Amino acid sequence: MPSSQKPDGLPQYSDVTAAAERLSGHARVTPLLQSNLLNERLGGRLLVKPEMLQRTGSFKFRGAFNRVSRIHKNVRGAGVVAYSSGNHAQGVAAAARLLGMPALIVMPRDAPEIKIASTRAHGAEIVFYDRLTENREEIGECLAADRGATLVRPYDDPYVIAGQGTVGLELAAQAREAGVRLDAVLLPCGGGGLTAGSALALAEECPETELYGVEPAGFDDTARSLAAGERRTNDARARSICDALQMPSPGEMTFAINVRLLTGGLVVDDDAAAAAMATAFSHFKVVAEPSGAVALAAMLEGIFPIKGKTVAVVCSGGNVDAQAFRAALDRPG
Amino acid sequence: MPSSQKPDGLPQYSDVTAAAERLSGHARVTPLLQSNLLNERLGGRLLVKPEMLQRTGSFKFRGAFNRVSRIHKNVRGAGVVAYSSGNHAQGVAAAARLLGMPALIVMPRDAPEIKIASTRAHGAEIVFYDRLTENREEIGECLAADRGATLVRPYDDPYVIAGQGTVGLELAAQAREAGVRLDAVLLPCGGGGLTAGSALALAEECPETELYGVEPAGFDDTARSLAAGERRTNDARARSICDALQMPSPGEMTFAINVRLLTGGLVVDDDAAAAAMATAFSHFKVVAEPSGAVALAAMLEGIFPIKGKTVAVVCSGGNVDAQAFRAALDRPG
Repeated sequence: MPSSQKPDGLPQYSDVTAAAERLSGHARVTPLLQSNLLNERLGGRLLVKPEMLQRTGSFKFRGAFNRVSRIHKNVRGAGVVAYSSGNHAQGVAAAARLLGMPALIVMPRDAPEIKIASTRAHGAEIVFYDRLTENREEIGECLAADRGATLVRPYDDPYVIAGQGTVGLELAAQAREAGVRLDAVLLPCGGGGLTAGSALALAEECPETELYGVEPAGFDDTARSLAAGERRTNDARARSICDALQMPSPGEMTFAINVRLLTGGLVVDDDAAAAAMATAFSHFKVVAEPSGAVALAAMLEGIFPIKGKTVAVVCSGGNVDAQAFRAALDRPG
Repeated sequence: MPSSQKPDGLPQYSDVTAAAERLSGHARVTPLLQSNLLNERLGGRLLVKPEMLQRTGSFKFRGAFNRVSRIHKNVRGAGVVAYSSGNHAQGVAAAARLLGMPALIVMPRDAPEIKIASTRAHGAEIVFYDRLTENREEIGECLAADRGATLVRPYDDPYVIAGQGTVGLELAAQAREAGVRLDAVLLPCGGGGLTAGSALALAEECPETELYGVEPAGFDDTARSLAAGERRTNDARARSICDALQMPSPGEMTFAINVRLLTGGLVVDDDAAAAAMATAFSHFKVVAEPSGAVALAAMLEGIFPIKGKTVAVVCSGGNVDAQAFRAALDRPG
């Protein structure tokens, strides 16, 4: 448990490599995809890391398994509690089942059907809350205390961050193997666990690579916080189709890492996310959910100019209802 | 060129391993996907080999590159000619461009838009023909003779068969690495190149595994030919949404291999193929075209009973127009 030995409690590079060892044989090594046709159109080289192919359909299994596997055997019987719009929920439910522990998940009533059904199918008990009027952290902490269960936070946890960081670690190794030097890596950013963990790995593996967190418009708390140098919050009235990236503010731990290691934050609107879902469909043959497509969107929209460069984007998940997916394919472009 | 030294001209296992070496660094190693939830529902273990993630969106790049890379440098300038409903077209066009050769492709006028656009984007010249009244083999042979170009047949070619066989070779290696013993492998079957090549590999790597070719109803020529012990043809009036699997009869070379190595042929209808596309979307987060989904369909429909078994299915391609994909997601189930 190296992280607990550090005064600031923040995970570091060695925690990511330890997570990779722990995940070996449990998490899937996702490939790195390319489309020569798209590269020609863009005038650059785009690499896509398709985490929708990860167990449970998103990268969240990595952090969840890394965290849940560290729970002491004496308290495993009481199980785990998590709050999540759906991807962390599935990750925790799957990890808990693999390790023989009960899981209780607090989910917003308006979460995508596919995420609710899949979380339940992984054997978890679900408690719903109202995203607009109730506080999920409070509900989760209360329920965990009642049961003596372990609360598995979605991002402000050193083991969760280190687990998500294995995405960046894998990406660096795959790029090296392909003989590619990465000019930049773009990652979807909600609470900031994927960006923070991957930044820990990438800053060590390829320190010259620029790193960007990408957020949906209205939920650009990390972009504004990075610019301000301190944590900022989102307008509570904001709405987006990116259901997995709607946090009130950056995490405390994740922001402490991101402010040190990210080059900056980028912001895309819902139309751009939907267009990127269509591109993921036609050029990469993978199913991206809106939140999973925002980094690809930033690149396709030219918000990050790729011309003459080599850029990797992480597509973080693919848990999207058929109806929402059809709507994205219907858009012109 | 080991195959030319054999009296029957048929490729063998060593041709597949030679193809794998030739393709290394050019073709993508596609992963092996699983869904624990689907496995629980099926009561068996299903492994999916997602060849839609292959370069050009289908396995066809493997055979095309293996064949085109063998063309003597003295005749490369005259280029290649191929006839194809679209996946072989893209495979040949991409392979030819990589090797600096011009490509002319004969395609049916009613091929999916995405296949026509992508073949053109790979730099190929396209000549259209009418699937119902014209003979594509004759057109292709004529055009190749006119230009002194090399005709790259879609399946009756030892190098093409050996290239497609690398799907089976990879699958066997990945199953071994995962500690899995395969009871059966199901593969989509059109001209029979993917089944024949993969059967060469699998019969050697795991001789106890049952091998099935899967065809759409109305185009079950291989199933009937296997049962009869000789090549049978399809009714010219047959129609299917599986545009990549509509051959008049099994290939000569491919059937000679398939009749020796396949356990049998299975047949699914269009509804089953569409339902399998929806399952590939929801459980595996990949885009399957109708033809690419038939092996998965045979398993999901219970035409091949998986209960208590470990079965691998190849999803052979994902080149499908958005409209057709939406239609598949719209179906109930």
